[in-house]
Amino acid sequence: MTAPMIVGDPSLPETVTIYEVGPRDGLQNEAAIVPLAAKVEFITRLIGAGLPIVEATSFVHPTWVPQLADAADLVALLPLSGATPLPVLVPNERGLDRALDAGCRHVAIFGSATESFAQKNLHASLDSQFAMFEPVVGRAREAGVDVRAYVSMCFGDPWEGPVPIDQVVSVGTRLLDLGASQLSIGDTIGVGTAAHVAELIGAFATAGVGVERLAMHFHDTYGQALANAYAALRLGITTFDASAGGLGGCPYAVSATGNLATEDLVWMLTGLGIQHGVDLDALVRTSVWMSGVLGKQPASAVVRALS
Amino acid sequence: MTAPMIVGDPSLPETVTIYEVGPRDGLQNEAAIVPLAAKVEFITRLIGAGLPIVEATSFVHPTWVPQLADAADLVALLPLSGATPLPVLVPNERGLDRALDAGCRHVAIFGSATESFAQKNLHASLDSQFAMFEPVVGRAREAGVDVRAYVSMCFGDPWEGPVPIDQVVSVGTRLLDLGASQLSIGDTIGVGTAAHVAELIGAFATAGVGVERLAMHFHDTYGQALANAYAALRLGITTFDASAGGLGGCPYAVSATGNLATEDLVWMLTGLGIQHGVDLDALVRTSVWMSGVLGKQPASAVVRALS
Repeated sequence: MTAPMIVGDPSLPETVTIYEVGPRDGLQNEAAIVPLAAKVEFITRLIGAGLPIVEATSFVHPTWVPQLADAADLVALLPLSGATPLPVLVPNERGLDRALDAGCRHVAIFGSATESFAQKNLHASLDSQFAMFEPVVGRAREAGVDVRAYVSMCFGDPWEGPVPIDQVVSVGTRLLDLGASQLSIGDTIGVGTAAHVAELIGAFATAGVGVERLAMHFHDTYGQALANAYAALRLGITTFDASAGGLGGCPYAVSATGNLATEDLVWMLTGLGIQHGVDLDALVRTSVWMSGVLGKQPASAVVRALS
Repeated sequence: MTAPMIVGDPSLPETVTIYEVGPRDGLQNEAAIVPLAAKVEFITRLIGAGLPIVEATSFVHPTWVPQLADAADLVALLPLSGATPLPVLVPNERGLDRALDAGCRHVAIFGSATESFAQKNLHASLDSQFAMFEPVVGRAREAGVDVRAYVSMCFGDPWEGPVPIDQVVSVGTRLLDLGASQLSIGDTIGVGTAAHVAELIGAFATAGVGVERLAMHFHDTYGQALANAYAALRLGITTFDASAGGLGGCPYAVSATGNLATEDLVWMLTGLGIQHGVDLDALVRTSVWMSGVLGKQPASAVVRALS
């Protein structure tokens, strides 16, 4: 069988947008450095497979993420004016400058829900990150560029443990107040479970942030990603981040599993009768090919079962 | 972090029984044949880790399942009168004879929801399986032995594709009518998705079979097992089959993933504040040790993350 039986549920959304993060969040956490031409082919094939939005790379300093050191060269080879948005991550104003120079129309910033991760990843305090991001978001918007804001460590933090829900909501709303159009709520270390997901979404609603402004970004470190996606779907979330083939690993745990695999999400959405626009066979072929480029087995269960 | 943040949901069951199938369904689908002494240690450690019921082996003919050819020798070394039930699978009357001779107090039969799998696995037709199982269940009950009935291929079948829900309910109710105390509803090839699970449970309820008589048995072949378990949990299912370390593979797909991993289920239940009685650290140590015996990486995400 190459597709599940379709059994719909009228209480679920009719359509879901899959925000593909494989080329950025996936490849930046793989040990191998993928050649530029293979990145272009990867993104081109993801677009061809029907992914409605593909995050292409990050304009982070190459010292920190050598895997994505070719960001400017890559973006120069991509169809930035095509129908599929190709956002890039910009860590700061310098990154934004490079993205704007390259002609990017969509950027993403990467905030932290915890003090420890803000200091380690942003080299800023939890509170000072907003001052750092303010000119990034402001200048992007002045240039007519859309800004998504990631909030990382929203469920647990490797140094602090469980993260208070009100702290996540506070960080998220402040990033929206700066002018971001969407929050991506990240379980960066993959520890969250389904009712925690529901409680966090409910807390955002109480704070005036509806599901239409939220995306959920799950990692499968503890096997919870798809169950958590289903819990979020039940509450009306319609944007999910996922990574082709489950690319990514986890920088904070010895784990073979990374981001929620796009194929596993597609299998569930198809079974639930939810529109997603992705050609699963084309996507699986793409992930099989990329796993060959990386020289490792794909983490996606669907890819392994179908290939 | 070695435990998720606990966020309960009062609409979910307070307690769940994990029916551990690693020593039987897990090991019978592994390529390696595990030595008898290691099987005894495996089951002893699973009992010690708090698993409330552990299916020990199968009295199937050794020609079909050489991995479990030592069933009688194994059972002779197990605490059959201990507090933890140790069921054994019996394919037919000959298997039941061997189980009764060995002093087993709990047995399981293995039915099929589809014609194709009945013929290939039971060497019987879909309809004639009931005549085959009737004396097995009858004689077991006369001997005061509890009988669980597995129903396999309840969501999809590798030869027939999607399986009609009314056909599954028909097979299940007929097995209960023979005298089985519990049905284990198996997604043998792992293709089902969450609303399909819900519809099947609802169809059993309509037929007069409540959630207290159902267990759910998911395979993670397409990454859906834990999401499906969460969907079933929401409908009040309180017994879930799972396999330590995700042992098992899938005999009908090229796949590295087998049964739902007990550790991944435990992580979710703990996060949801649901009682399960399992010591996760002890269980992870057991699965790490067994993966060494088998010479392969554990399939459980939790085991890989914590080991």
